[in-house]
Amino acid sequence: MNVDGLGAKMAQSNKDNLRRFFEQVWDQGDETAVDAFLADSYTIQHDPGDPWHGKTLDINGFKERLRVSRTPFPDQKFNIQEMTEEDNRIAVSWLWTGTHKADIPGFPASGKVISMSGLTIYFFKEGRICGHWQQTDRLSVFQQLSQP
Amino acid sequence: MNVDGLGAKMAQSNKDNLRRFFEQVWDQGDETAVDAFLADSYTIQHDPGDPWHGKTLDINGFKERLRVSRTPFPDQKFNIQEMTEEDNRIAVSWLWTGTHKADIPGFPASGKVISMSGLTIYFFKEGRICGHWQQTDRLSVFQQLSQP
Repeated sequence: MNVDGLGAKMAQSNKDNLRRFFEQVWDQGDETAVDAFLADSYTIQHDPGDPWHGKTLDINGFKERLRVSRTPFPDQKFNIQEMTEEDNRIAVSWLWTGTHKADIPGFPASGKVISMSGLTIYFFKEGRICGHWQQTDRLSVFQQLSQP
Repeated sequence: MNVDGLGAKMAQSNKDNLRRFFEQVWDQGDETAVDAFLADSYTIQHDPGDPWHGKTLDINGFKERLRVSRTPFPDQKFNIQEMTEEDNRIAVSWLWTGTHKADIPGFPASGKVISMSGLTIYFFKEGRICGHWQQTDRLSVFQQLSQP
């Protein structure tokens, strides 16, 4: 971190942090970056279809979720549409694409480029991300994977 | 409208209006209530699976969408989880239930109670709702309708 006497650069806004979290953690899969963004515990409040739906994870648990989630789509990319912030939370609308390069149960690696949309509310505690409430377009993914 | 000299009651917050919009328009299906909440034009910016995805509707077009959307689930009920507001927009997380009482293409009326979750960003213009960006859990609905 760059200490420049003003201190302003040390106090990144939650929106700045969330944008970098998407890029470094979810797009690039950088596990070491997780430490800078995450609170000590992270709760997946609501995320239908996610194996960790309803669970609270520590940092290592979150890194495992990151690894497992990214494996089928290692080049995945989130395209943030809009952020809406109030108090300790930010709602993010996003579009997503990824190439299906590893097996998913029922769907062997196909090389297809899959796209999806979703909305996520991220919760913050003292500048760190401590959980989310999410809805993704799971049906769209299944339809694309099922096409011959 | 009740003019009471204070004027405060006339200036409902966007959150108050959105809560009443869910109740009166989407839960109760009151078409006359639409006039009080909607801007002259309403754009469905993003709503995968909605027949009006990407379209801009006038008030009568919106009332038709309301009628058609509610027909299969006439007792539908939205349970708002949380609102996140910034500037001219509010993100709403919600749970939904409805009884499947009329036919949907491929799914004749079954009497099943269906549940779903979703997240919607509503956009406001001068206190009136002028559009949304939405993600619903369509897969969950198809799974419930497909079960024997």
